[in-house]
Amino acid sequence: MKRLRIGIVGGTGYTGVELLRLLARHPHAELVAITSRKEAGMPVADLFPSLRGQIDLAFSTPDDAPLHTCDLVFFATPHGVAMAQARRLVDAGVRLIDLAADFRLQNLAEFTQWYGMEHACPELLQESVYGLPELRREAIAKARIVANPGCYPTTVQLGFAPLLRTPGLIEADHLVANCVSGVSGAGRKAEIGLLFSEASDNYKAYGVKGHRHGPEINEQLRRIAGVAPGGGAVDCLFVPHLAPMIRGMHSTLYARLTPTGQTADLQSLYAEFYAREAFVDVLPAGSVPETRSVRGANTLRLAIHRPRADTAMILVVQDNLTKGASGQAVQNMNVMFGLPETTGLDSLAVLP
Amino acid sequence: MKRLRIGIVGGTGYTGVELLRLLARHPHAELVAITSRKEAGMPVADLFPSLRGQIDLAFSTPDDAPLHTCDLVFFATPHGVAMAQARRLVDAGVRLIDLAADFRLQNLAEFTQWYGMEHACPELLQESVYGLPELRREAIAKARIVANPGCYPTTVQLGFAPLLRTPGLIEADHLVANCVSGVSGAGRKAEIGLLFSEASDNYKAYGVKGHRHGPEINEQLRRIAGVAPGGGAVDCLFVPHLAPMIRGMHSTLYARLTPTGQTADLQSLYAEFYAREAFVDVLPAGSVPETRSVRGANTLRLAIHRPRADTAMILVVQDNLTKGASGQAVQNMNVMFGLPETTGLDSLAVLP
Amino acid sequence: MKRLRIGIVGGTGYTGVELLRLLARHPHAELVAITSRKEAGMPVADLFPSLRGQIDLAFSTPDDAPLHTCDLVFFATPHGVAMAQARRLVDAGVRLIDLAADFRLQNLAEFTQWYGMEHACPELLQESVYGLPELRREAIAKARIVANPGCYPTTVQLGFAPLLRTPGLIEADHLVANCVSGVSGAGRKAEIGLLFSEASDNYKAYGVKGHRHGPEINEQLRRIAGVAPGGGAVDCLFVPHLAPMIRGMHSTLYARLTPTGQTADLQSLYAEFYAREAFVDVLPAGSVPETRSVRGANTLRLAIHRPRADTAMILVVQDNLTKGASGQAVQNMNVMFGLPETTGLDSLAVLP
Amino acid sequence: MKRLRIGIVGGTGYTGVELLRLLARHPHAELVAITSRKEAGMPVADLFPSLRGQIDLAFSTPDDAPLHTCDLVFFATPHGVAMAQARRLVDAGVRLIDLAADFRLQNLAEFTQWYGMEHACPELLQESVYGLPELRREAIAKARIVANPGCYPTTVQLGFAPLLRTPGLIEADHLVANCVSGVSGAGRKAEIGLLFSEASDNYKAYGVKGHRHGPEINEQLRRIAGVAPGGGAVDCLFVPHLAPMIRGMHSTLYARLTPTGQTADLQSLYAEFYAREAFVDVLPAGSVPETRSVRGANTLRLAIHRPRADTAMILVVQDNLTKGASGQAVQNMNVMFGLPETTGLDSLAVLP
Repeated sequence: MKRLRIGIVGGTGYTGVELLRLLARHPHAELVAITSRKEAGMPVADLFPSLRGQIDLAFSTPDDAPLHTCDLVFFATPHGVAMAQARRLVDAGVRLIDLAADFRLQNLAEFTQWYGMEHACPELLQESVYGLPELRREAIAKARIVANPGCYPTTVQLGFAPLLRTPGLIEADHLVANCVSGVSGAGRKAEIGLLFSEASDNYKAYGVKGHRHGPEINEQLRRIAGVAPGGGAVDCLFVPHLAPMIRGMHSTLYARLTPTGQTADLQSLYAEFYAREAFVDVLPAGSVPETRSVRGANTLRLAIHRPRADTAMILVVQDNLTKGASGQAVQNMNVMFGLPETTGLDSLAVLP
Repeated sequence: MKRLRIGIVGGTGYTGVELLRLLARHPHAELVAITSRKEAGMPVADLFPSLRGQIDLAFSTPDDAPLHTCDLVFFATPHGVAMAQARRLVDAGVRLIDLAADFRLQNLAEFTQWYGMEHACPELLQESVYGLPELRREAIAKARIVANPGCYPTTVQLGFAPLLRTPGLIEADHLVANCVSGVSGAGRKAEIGLLFSEASDNYKAYGVKGHRHGPEINEQLRRIAGVAPGGGAVDCLFVPHLAPMIRGMHSTLYARLTPTGQTADLQSLYAEFYAREAFVDVLPAGSVPETRSVRGANTLRLAIHRPRADTAMILVVQDNLTKGASGQAVQNMNVMFGLPETTGLDSLAVLP
Repeated sequence: MKRLRIGIVGGTGYTGVELLRLLARHPHAELVAITSRKEAGMPVADLFPSLRGQIDLAFSTPDDAPLHTCDLVFFATPHGVAMAQARRLVDAGVRLIDLAADFRLQNLAEFTQWYGMEHACPELLQESVYGLPELRREAIAKARIVANPGCYPTTVQLGFAPLLRTPGLIEADHLVANCVSGVSGAGRKAEIGLLFSEASDNYKAYGVKGHRHGPEINEQLRRIAGVAPGGGAVDCLFVPHLAPMIRGMHSTLYARLTPTGQTADLQSLYAEFYAREAFVDVLPAGSVPETRSVRGANTLRLAIHRPRADTAMILVVQDNLTKGASGQAVQNMNVMFGLPETTGLDSLAVLP
Repeated sequence: MKRLRIGIVGGTGYTGVELLRLLARHPHAELVAITSRKEAGMPVADLFPSLRGQIDLAFSTPDDAPLHTCDLVFFATPHGVAMAQARRLVDAGVRLIDLAADFRLQNLAEFTQWYGMEHACPELLQESVYGLPELRREAIAKARIVANPGCYPTTVQLGFAPLLRTPGLIEADHLVANCVSGVSGAGRKAEIGLLFSEASDNYKAYGVKGHRHGPEINEQLRRIAGVAPGGGAVDCLFVPHLAPMIRGMHSTLYARLTPTGQTADLQSLYAEFYAREAFVDVLPAGSVPETRSVRGANTLRLAIHRPRADTAMILVVQDNLTKGASGQAVQNMNVMFGLPETTGLDSLAVLP
């Protein structure tokens, strides 16, 4: 098969280097351009020494990059960049995967509230598809623009989906998602709070007054449950925490079971729901997943528990940069171009 | 004042070395014996290089140690040791603080269920006092035997106490305590799962089929709420997790507020409840506590939030070895012997 | 091409799981047996959750395993196991790669001194080949038994080789190798000193009275320099240290330059020496390598410096489990069976 | 005794918060002002949550601070600040301890070369005293201005001093100091390279083209050896490395022994040299010091080894922020004001 011509806009952050790591070994991808105004001219391998000898490309300015001739362009940029360039690229026949948030929220008011800007192309937003392949595979295959999900929302959605898709099992208006991320989730930004000497040997909650992934989680959980937008019957309290690890995300999800839910075989429900998924691993009953078991892999592992008669608890882990970001983006690419979904994503977790 | 004659039984673990660190600088404590069958004859400072030049004592066998002449003996031993020796020591006029679990559960059936042994001295158990000074100060002052609380239970009790003491604020039968500990909480045991190469850069839940601190938490929360033992009106789901840090414990507590609770001024409730406490720091509204802010200090910090109209969330941090174990034991000692409660406990957290 | 039938003896340690990670994706390897007396019957993926869904094999007892039908057997065992089984396997036509030390030292007296046992098969030792492909490629290709080098010795040999191969550049009798390893180098052993709470946020030297890799380093450096065994003209002081990271090895090598050496173009010397090597990356002048740049990859990176007119300093990094152990073992396998040397070893370092 | 009136200029960095931690418990120190233009008005405890409830002071602008009425002012500022303000303070009768480098190098040309600025007050530099109490106690006691030593230079000087003070033991012109620091040594600066996701699980050399502590080390080693300034007979190659820990510094020092040195009893030499020092702990023969054994304490531990007949190796550890910076500053303060040298510095290392 002809190799896909791939462009990356941005790419100086952690989702960027992870995307490069994966694409460098993807048998059907040919990276033709990677742009960064700030680092234009610098070989990618000078910024990320892990890429020495593997990727010859240098960063170029957006103007010099042949993005319009690409089959697919990934945006690994700050919020707001993808929506500003989407129209021109789409009109040129280029498909897009945005790893930022520009196409994650269909609710325009919420987008403006949480991201502090008007949406630049509401009509493209409307046709864009939320790129969680396990739940939206067919739409993704046909999409011109795919919104790569946030890292936390991926764990929360895949964790709750089996319970929400079957009506009447849980009290969906009082879900709790107690989530933990490694520090790379905050990006490659020179901020005091992300320093080794601040974040190491430490644990804290953050974003307690509200986090951008909250509205994304709830918009999507409502869709999964089949509730009309704005419907209040699904509500998840999302509380993120920061743990001293580089990669890794762990979500502990709580839902009160209805009397019907209390009689359901939850282990079978989950096992069957994900039976045909390559990247979702439902652990045997009684197990606990560990983040290190997915370090560098595109796998999400989960375990379903019932610690109290009327309570379901789901433990979910993923690598926030792989299944939580760039691995999922490559998975979306595979779906969009009709490749086997695991292409280029089959390397095993690095453990220990 | 005459220095108290202090003995330590056990002391080769992390609560032991923390106790030694604190007692070495306590102006009214004179350490006269520390016992360990296994390490008998070895200078304490050979086992813990941080004590070189500070503590001259060597470990002795329990038989050689002048424990019966002590004013106070700490048990920093595995479960089951303190209750076997308590009777003889108490009869000799020695007071006891047990850092293990022998005197934590008043319910004998639960003790046997969770610790796999019959209780050796139920009558002493009955007179013993649960040593959480902020809630039981007067009883501790007079006690012959003090049960030093578990690390997790300390955070959960001090976190929920203001809400539970005022009747009718929360749905007390559906509390959730999502808790995280640093690895030192598991003790100084040569186990694969606690190796650096296993526990580092990793996060996981554990004890999901039930953890010994669960019944302790619920027995004490019922007491705080004034519910009769066995009463089911208080029930807390406790889920512990392991994070890659040496010291530090973080509990995220969730409670649904009743209509009454939703109108209460929770910030004031907490601020007033702990206004006179030296070791409980209620943060200003909107804050998040960090575990590193209490590293090596006997302080517990907490913040009360209302992330959803009908939900209270309390964030609690402590050093699991200090306020969560040995610091609290010294605090109990101070209370028992009429010393100012902060004596020997005033050093600041080590940050960064 | 027909897939090679591969057996692994041992494999419950970190070099074992790393070998499994690599072989699971090797296009020409078919893993037919993995043995462990202790874990016989347990699926490999139950011990190492990162392998779930990737490796179906269970551990078997050595007696039940079809090792004699293999093309190649890896020994990822404690010292002494491989040499006890080598004769039978070799006679059955099976080739061997020992990841332990049984075939690393040609000097029998030193083997006994450092490993506390007589060598079980000196005649096989004599024909065995020390498996550092960059220096012994042709001999490895024909060997029946390959001694996979120690992790530290790999960095020291590849670091000093260009200087030693050209006679007269350095004072070879006073080399210094100040080396640092991540904790996984000590293996998956339940020892107090390897606990997270002991090894984290800590740094120390170890093995200062002598380390087994010392004689290995010196025996090989003499060979590289062309000095007769026992010749004293090459002597390297090797000092290992332990740093709080899972994977990663860093060696800082010092050599005094002779007047001739001071006039040499060391950067070119190194660049040319390794110009055709896929797994040795000589950094540009003035660079420093970081261990994370090779995390999980089979690459060794080095930089040559001259910090004082008469002193050469070489900075070398590798992943101790990959190029320092199991990656190098697979590289040796590729050489032994005439495969391209990079087969199955082309995945990029995981960074961050 | 009357409490000393203390001012701190700067103090928003890690040496600042460490100084505050120590001074808050110093029985003879009264902190009257702490300045920061950037943070003026902010309570110190808002910046460093570990100080909540312990230090009431807020940062003030330099102009508002009553520095001229202080007995002593610490400068915990970037290089260049102390020398600009020293004249006015000294003339007002205030004594100074500079934790930066303004008074560390007596050689003006080297100061300009390494710090990129002319010295502002060469005459004050000349009278200032290099504040390593173990070697310069009497001069410090009388000094108006004390240059607090760099962290690395403290370990290198105290490590080599016994060997250098006795003439003829070592080849002093070829010393090697292979040194390692925790990340806090780089300060509280928002730089990419210091992020948790960059510095964690990583190890690298840095400053290989020259580091500011190099000239400081050599100027002081020459003084210790009694060599005239500019004399070349003492030369130490200093190579710093970065390890993933918050606090902690480890130096591995190498010196070739002369024939005389080879017959000396090095263990006794070191033990006697430091016999009366409260903060230098010479370990028993054969020991290795660990950085964690001094975490948060003002102790420097070292061990002297002879790994090769003609080579001495000294292993030295300290907490880079305590004995390596702020603890040593308080030790200097004690010396300057005739207090027992251990005042306020007697808390034990936090281990684990």
